[in-house]
Amino acid sequence: MNPQLVFGESKIFHGCDYNPEQWLDYPEILEKDLALMQEAGCNIVSIGIFSWAKLEPEEGKFDFSWLDMIIEKLHAHGVKVILATPSGARPAWLDLKYPEVLRMTEDRQTRLHGHRQNHCLTSPVYREKVKIINTKLAERYAHHPAVVSWHISNEFGGYCHCPLCQKAFRRFLKERYGTLEKLNHAWWSTFWSHTYTDWDQIESPSKNLGEWCVHGLNLDFRRFSTAQCMDFCKAEIDTVKPFNPDLPVTTNFMEFFYDYDYFEFAKILDYTCWDSYPEWHVYEDPEYIASYTAMNHDLMRSLKQKPFVLMEHTVSCTNWRPLSRLKKPGMEKLSCLQAVAHGADSIQGFQWRKSRGSSEKFHGAIIDHVGHLNTRVGREVKELGGILQRLGEVAGTEVRAQAALVLDTQNRWALDDAQGPRNAGLHYLEVCLDYYHELWRRGVAVDVIDETCPLDKYKLVIAPMTYMIRGDYGQRVENFVKNGGVYVSTFWSGIVDENDLCFLGGFPGPLRQVLGIWDEEIECLDEGEQVKVISDTALSPELWGSYQGSLLCALVHPESAQTLAQYDSDFYRGMSAVTRNIYGMGRAYYVATRLDRSFLDNFVRILVDGLDLTRELSHPIAGVSAMARYSDTKKFLFIGNYSAEAKTVGLKGEYYDLINEQTRSGNLTLMPYGSAVLSCPL
Amino acid sequence: MNPQLVFGESKIFHGCDYNPEQWLDYPEILEKDLALMQEAGCNIVSIGIFSWAKLEPEEGKFDFSWLDMIIEKLHAHGVKVILATPSGARPAWLDLKYPEVLRMTEDRQTRLHGHRQNHCLTSPVYREKVKIINTKLAERYAHHPAVVSWHISNEFGGYCHCPLCQKAFRRFLKERYGTLEKLNHAWWSTFWSHTYTDWDQIESPSKNLGEWCVHGLNLDFRRFSTAQCMDFCKAEIDTVKPFNPDLPVTTNFMEFFYDYDYFEFAKILDYTCWDSYPEWHVYEDPEYIASYTAMNHDLMRSLKQKPFVLMEHTVSCTNWRPLSRLKKPGMEKLSCLQAVAHGADSIQGFQWRKSRGSSEKFHGAIIDHVGHLNTRVGREVKELGGILQRLGEVAGTEVRAQAALVLDTQNRWALDDAQGPRNAGLHYLEVCLDYYHELWRRGVAVDVIDETCPLDKYKLVIAPMTYMIRGDYGQRVENFVKNGGVYVSTFWSGIVDENDLCFLGGFPGPLRQVLGIWDEEIECLDEGEQVKVISDTALSPELWGSYQGSLLCALVHPESAQTLAQYDSDFYRGMSAVTRNIYGMGRAYYVATRLDRSFLDNFVRILVDGLDLTRELSHPIAGVSAMARYSDTKKFLFIGNYSAEAKTVGLKGEYYDLINEQTRSGNLTLMPYGSAVLSCPL
Amino acid sequence: MNPQLVFGESKIFHGCDYNPEQWLDYPEILEKDLALMQEAGCNIVSIGIFSWAKLEPEEGKFDFSWLDMIIEKLHAHGVKVILATPSGARPAWLDLKYPEVLRMTEDRQTRLHGHRQNHCLTSPVYREKVKIINTKLAERYAHHPAVVSWHISNEFGGYCHCPLCQKAFRRFLKERYGTLEKLNHAWWSTFWSHTYTDWDQIESPSKNLGEWCVHGLNLDFRRFSTAQCMDFCKAEIDTVKPFNPDLPVTTNFMEFFYDYDYFEFAKILDYTCWDSYPEWHVYEDPEYIASYTAMNHDLMRSLKQKPFVLMEHTVSCTNWRPLSRLKKPGMEKLSCLQAVAHGADSIQGFQWRKSRGSSEKFHGAIIDHVGHLNTRVGREVKELGGILQRLGEVAGTEVRAQAALVLDTQNRWALDDAQGPRNAGLHYLEVCLDYYHELWRRGVAVDVIDETCPLDKYKLVIAPMTYMIRGDYGQRVENFVKNGGVYVSTFWSGIVDENDLCFLGGFPGPLRQVLGIWDEEIECLDEGEQVKVISDTALSPELWGSYQGSLLCALVHPESAQTLAQYDSDFYRGMSAVTRNIYGMGRAYYVATRLDRSFLDNFVRILVDGLDLTRELSHPIAGVSAMARYSDTKKFLFIGNYSAEAKTVGLKGEYYDLINEQTRSGNLTLMPYGSAVLSCPL
Repeated sequence: MNPQLVFGESKIFHGCDYNPEQWLDYPEILEKDLALMQEAGCNIVSIGIFSWAKLEPEEGKFDFSWLDMIIEKLHAHGVKVILATPSGARPAWLDLKYPEVLRMTEDRQTRLHGHRQNHCLTSPVYREKVKIINTKLAERYAHHPAVVSWHISNEFGGYCHCPLCQKAFRRFLKERYGTLEKLNHAWWSTFWSHTYTDWDQIESPSKNLGEWCVHGLNLDFRRFSTAQCMDFCKAEIDTVKPFNPDLPVTTNFMEFFYDYDYFEFAKILDYTCWDSYPEWHVYEDPEYIASYTAMNHDLMRSLKQKPFVLMEHTVSCTNWRPLSRLKKPGMEKLSCLQAVAHGADSIQGFQWRKSRGSSEKFHGAIIDHVGHLNTRVGREVKELGGILQRLGEVAGTEVRAQAALVLDTQNRWALDDAQGPRNAGLHYLEVCLDYYHELWRRGVAVDVIDETCPLDKYKLVIAPMTYMIRGDYGQRVENFVKNGGVYVSTFWSGIVDENDLCFLGGFPGPLRQVLGIWDEEIECLDEGEQVKVISDTALSPELWGSYQGSLLCALVHPESAQTLAQYDSDFYRGMSAVTRNIYGMGRAYYVATRLDRSFLDNFVRILVDGLDLTRELSHPIAGVSAMARYSDTKKFLFIGNYSAEAKTVGLKGEYYDLINEQTRSGNLTLMPYGSAVLSCPL
Repeated sequence: MNPQLVFGESKIFHGCDYNPEQWLDYPEILEKDLALMQEAGCNIVSIGIFSWAKLEPEEGKFDFSWLDMIIEKLHAHGVKVILATPSGARPAWLDLKYPEVLRMTEDRQTRLHGHRQNHCLTSPVYREKVKIINTKLAERYAHHPAVVSWHISNEFGGYCHCPLCQKAFRRFLKERYGTLEKLNHAWWSTFWSHTYTDWDQIESPSKNLGEWCVHGLNLDFRRFSTAQCMDFCKAEIDTVKPFNPDLPVTTNFMEFFYDYDYFEFAKILDYTCWDSYPEWHVYEDPEYIASYTAMNHDLMRSLKQKPFVLMEHTVSCTNWRPLSRLKKPGMEKLSCLQAVAHGADSIQGFQWRKSRGSSEKFHGAIIDHVGHLNTRVGREVKELGGILQRLGEVAGTEVRAQAALVLDTQNRWALDDAQGPRNAGLHYLEVCLDYYHELWRRGVAVDVIDETCPLDKYKLVIAPMTYMIRGDYGQRVENFVKNGGVYVSTFWSGIVDENDLCFLGGFPGPLRQVLGIWDEEIECLDEGEQVKVISDTALSPELWGSYQGSLLCALVHPESAQTLAQYDSDFYRGMSAVTRNIYGMGRAYYVATRLDRSFLDNFVRILVDGLDLTRELSHPIAGVSAMARYSDTKKFLFIGNYSAEAKTVGLKGEYYDLINEQTRSGNLTLMPYGSAVLSCPL
Repeated sequence: MNPQLVFGESKIFHGCDYNPEQWLDYPEILEKDLALMQEAGCNIVSIGIFSWAKLEPEEGKFDFSWLDMIIEKLHAHGVKVILATPSGARPAWLDLKYPEVLRMTEDRQTRLHGHRQNHCLTSPVYREKVKIINTKLAERYAHHPAVVSWHISNEFGGYCHCPLCQKAFRRFLKERYGTLEKLNHAWWSTFWSHTYTDWDQIESPSKNLGEWCVHGLNLDFRRFSTAQCMDFCKAEIDTVKPFNPDLPVTTNFMEFFYDYDYFEFAKILDYTCWDSYPEWHVYEDPEYIASYTAMNHDLMRSLKQKPFVLMEHTVSCTNWRPLSRLKKPGMEKLSCLQAVAHGADSIQGFQWRKSRGSSEKFHGAIIDHVGHLNTRVGREVKELGGILQRLGEVAGTEVRAQAALVLDTQNRWALDDAQGPRNAGLHYLEVCLDYYHELWRRGVAVDVIDETCPLDKYKLVIAPMTYMIRGDYGQRVENFVKNGGVYVSTFWSGIVDENDLCFLGGFPGPLRQVLGIWDEEIECLDEGEQVKVISDTALSPELWGSYQGSLLCALVHPESAQTLAQYDSDFYRGMSAVTRNIYGMGRAYYVATRLDRSFLDNFVRILVDGLDLTRELSHPIAGVSAMARYSDTKKFLFIGNYSAEAKTVGLKGEYYDLINEQTRSGNLTLMPYGSAVLSCPL
């Protein structure tokens, strides 16, 4: 295996967003920055993200002098540059002169100038203006030795409903469906007399003013918006890439994000990166946010099946949440090493220096308003910089996942949008996390994939709530199990096809045969309401016990499947709650309700043991995670303690402690929020 | 008495909304439908409700072939047809070509195409287009032997604020007031300098942008909207009726509905029908939703004082509430027989077959996506079909109410809109239900009327919170009591006249003499706050006890009335909380606060016993209801158990059990959610 | 000292808003009004507030006959008149003909006609029309012997975003900053590429559609709106004042109000007045609302450092809150005497007679719909009228405050708008009240000032959360302490300058030296979350104890200050929680978190004792307040019992009881909600 080095060097990079244009009036501060970066061990920065107004203060009048100066300085100090295209926020002159670039809301109001990420991505004028500035940047910097990557725009997101987008949406639909007849069938538009007889009758969804009940329309508008944003991003890439085809491009994704389908989007990028802002110290259960964040890291890595970049995180606190919690001592190191453990090869913070004014002046930054690094936060950042320098070998190594979690964005759009069976909330992400968490706490590596991804490389695939069966997914699940795979499905699976049309003839539709059950109907429980589920030695000696189900209860009839546990409440007492179907050489499980932790602990332990999956902890330790990366010759083990108490982990064999540069064996004690990085030969 | 047969046959009909236009691409499914209807005992369907786009796919181009085919098939299988006019949802071409038909919101935004029930009911273009399609339908089907009724539009509702409606509103006001001087007085517009000096200055209310504090304006806009919707509906009736004057017309009302005054609206219909979607199994107290639903059924019957149609209900669950609860086994039968008990002569579900896609694909239906009746729900529907076939004798029989509850829509509009005395909520419906419930649980039949209805046919009239005294209501209450009636009034009664202008000279205004009290001021309690109310043997031996009041406390001075209970809290300790005034040959009670169940149980028992009202249960049994319908020769007794436990009811005398076709006497045990229909000669 | 008599007479006036234009159709009622006013002891009324439509029913057509008649009647009965300009609500003809006068919302929607206080204050047309009617009024009534003051408009408030206001805003900014360069720096606009390159690019803030994250823009828009409203009000004053320069002008302020900076606004008025609607009897702790209201009274007095007018209050209940609570017996007297105690020399209610219809028909009034004074409320109003007649000596006397609370509107705007450190709520007012309350319950007189006010007249200045240091405030604090003053600061102080730009080099910026600490970072706590704070004899023998902190925890390092208490929780255990810095001849305290009542009780007691501040109670008594006013020769002591229990206060020396007209000494017992007014020679 060749290590997949994101910026070509065997190095875990350390850096941040750097916005020197805010400080051009303060030359003494710009001067200090470089020395402070060296003190903090920062060797990479993203620049230019919001620089358009400084680079092109008037239409067609450019000023690169300050950027030249900054890049030269960085280069002189050995700091690498990820250069952003500035399309994330428009200069005011552009909005004033070309109002078509302003996004239109779902309520059909044209936005005013201001804020950011709120342009019409269809507007030809906007695309043209972006192309001009991007061309200038690429001409000037694509071959600069400090520049290692393009950072296309910033945190793409949101939908536009302007007339230009309406037209583009209709074009998208024409391409997708060919005829209105097919569109009408897919959208089941006869319902409520919604049949379209002219393409121009189609309008994007509008909750307050127009149509929002045609699920196919809503779904296709989300698909269109992904496609339109990708098209915009692709146009940016096509502008800058020809100047230096070796320079990789990316755009920064966000926490498992709703607006676009990242599995599609990632296809046009050279590598993925994301902005991660977990709510550390807000939840009482520290494992919750730790495993949730891990799941997101795994998703980002799985998108391209290679190392990614943590493009933004905060070194202390955010300032846009209800509570601006400080990261407690140790947490900055712990959370950054967690990212590395899951595949990040560059750790970058937002931002270098706190703004003096405006929106993000109280967002955490490496350099606080006081202006030096001799702060609690500054000292921990310096320490982290030192540690990362000692992890060069980890760069480009892989995570070896034998298990996959299916977390499908289009499925999520569809099930959230469907009216029924529980408009109070289906909690798709939380149910996925239920299962992910059980693997995480055992140190089992997981890929987070969607329904379009290959399944055959895994031993275990857990796919909660696959309400929508896209394309040939059903067939591929059958093949996977037939060939010996273990597949876990749950309630609210196999209900609709790719167009959100229900399968006729019995749920779970294309999964009915592999799961060996018929899902007749589904009951919905109130917040806090529970049903009893029991298993006994006759049903399953391993799952013997009494559990609580919640959220939804599928009422299923086993066909070829065997019942492992059954309901013990209400009128469906005695019906199957958990089933297992032997299918070909594999097994397919079905869990009919949202079962509690006690069940999941048993259930996942049985699966992991049965398949003998690699796990980095012999048994779960509350608050502790262990994840590994592998080179051809070495294993790198990352252990983290997310709890406020010291924890002890027993090491099997001898390791080298890369942080403390010494060997380790036997019991390893981690302080509260402590972390360890160990290596051993394979 | 001639039985009042809604569709001319001595039959309790069984059916549903049937939307075959959704399945025209699936001929095999259309084929199966008829056989399945026979299996389910369905003998009536509503069709065409959302068919406009299929009937007139282009402006002026009509296609009735599919509807001909469907109606012929239904007829051939003996299924009757309620034919809808399709004005409930517009075809897309209409909106695109004639934007004036689109409704305008209170914020003066024109809606986009989409959804349903959102046209401007004033628009001449819309009325014209509706007239054309309705004429075509009437020409073609008014004499078809399968067609038994017109279903005008669908679930009329909502308000339009477009310029056309503004003009129509001003015309309505000119007619109502004649001069601006009178309007200004009625609206008390001098307040805040709001005097109108030109009719064109008047705009419909707008909470966010304009006027919303002139209560008279708000009230008149609601009255206008009722009138305008009735005018629209009348125009539809006038189009179809001439083709066959014998065909009855209706439109489907909704759960005690806020937008329009149904007591006015019912006047232009031949019979009433409604769409009933109670939240069974959501509330902990199963009696609450059962008696609330019963109150609504009674309202629908009282509107025209004759049997009504249950036009829609769900056989399993809705899909538009926060929780899609399944009806538990037995509940479909129980809830449908409840409707019959209160006067329904046709029981129809929404809908026949679950849609494959779009908004209501997860709304309960008789045929689920699996496509047959061999489901839990399908089997219960079939059973119900069989039962209804055995209830033919019940059709056209009457409910004999000796008690009436006054539940006045215009009063409700006015008291909800008034600022003060408790903007956090006056809970008018709940207070009405407090009293209704006490009658319901004793099996006392109740008419639900408004202030315009005759009082003299009742022995007991309970009229909570008659804040607004409309027309000669005060005079009629005086006459009613003078002639021996028993009248119950509560706090927040007799405050304003029909224009929402306060009575001067002392509340409760026109009720002051008959109630014999002066209501000086009103205190308002917080959520959960209570005041103590006591009665002793000196005040009232029958009401002796200690109770809790809540919500509002009128502070009244008895004039000719006698105090039966008094406050025992706060600065008004010792003031009257319940009074009785002997007036002519009758009695008038006043309850000054919202008293608890323990008081209401005592109080209503005393009233019912004192008047010797017919009651179908000798004493209340938790969760059990008993209601009767009467022909000239027979009594039909409907008993239902709304609880999750078996219940036993002692029968007096011998009955014939119409469900099980056997005689019954002594103790009758009802399973959870069980029901019984018994008959005996009079 | 000359008494500062607001209306020129040694009298505490008693009156109300009088809106006779609502009753012109009811001559018998107008007739009765004067007799009832005499019965109630009313000797002053505000009239004409909403009379425009009656005074100018058509553009340019005036009718003063009714107002002549009313003023003559009032004069004949010795009732003084505060004459309002009618600009608070527009006649309908004005809106219809000149739509530019309609305010535009933040979402850029033009409002419709209706409601009140919703004009564009920039509109030249509106200003012209107001000038015309005001000129007519002034010509006619400025020298009428009954008229004692002008009441300019009514309850000014709100912001307009129309094109006229956008232009005016840009003019304001040009004047403030001179160049865009300076504006860009002050707004830190380089952030997110927001640099302005043309004044026309600037738009007022818009949360939904445009810019709302540039704190400097938001802040300046509030400043502009204060300036624009003052300019409008000044134009009104300049119209009426020349007709009789001796007639004082005011406008009615509201409960510590957010839209405008009253410290600026008060400068153009002759005296201040306000509309006070406390939520008596809603909070469980009766002291809370009593001291909160007292703080507002003190603010109104402090604005011009002289007696003010209570322009509106309700004699019984409001009707625009969630709950319309009645004032309990005694509360009307108690709350009105509270206002006098804090400096009010005229006590006026809203309104004289309850409207028959429209929005405020259920708002408390002196004359209820019943039409006479023989009501619980009427009797108490009459009693109050009698008492006020006996307080003539109090008029024009002063409150002698040795302590000041800094409660700065511009600071409040800025800290509420800033994103971070606790978007869930910073509770500025509540924290200010924490400290005010401790002074109030000891009977210590307090001025409520802002950062622009002189500090040197006080012994003690408490300034919580001075996030923004405006102008030379930091320097003035240093001088104050240097010269012997005691200054109390808290967490979240000294963060930004007047433009909301952070101080560089270490917080609390300009207060760092006087407080002797460096504030490194700030932790934010969740609702209900607490940290332990301890002091022991080593730290401070007087503050010895264990306390709870909440809300925010500044993590500070003492520089020259001494630690009096420290944190005993979390990673900052052992850091300073309370410090004291000896600076010059004074002391400066810093309280790093929101400490509990037990701490504040100790802390404020120590401060008050240490400075030997005058206090009217020797020790706090739950629910009881004592405040004094002073003439050159006498002290007037107002004691009030805000609790539902009788309370006893020990009097030192002999007093004259002005209510009961007898001498008093020893123990004085106050009934629930009872009050006493005592005098003694100085």
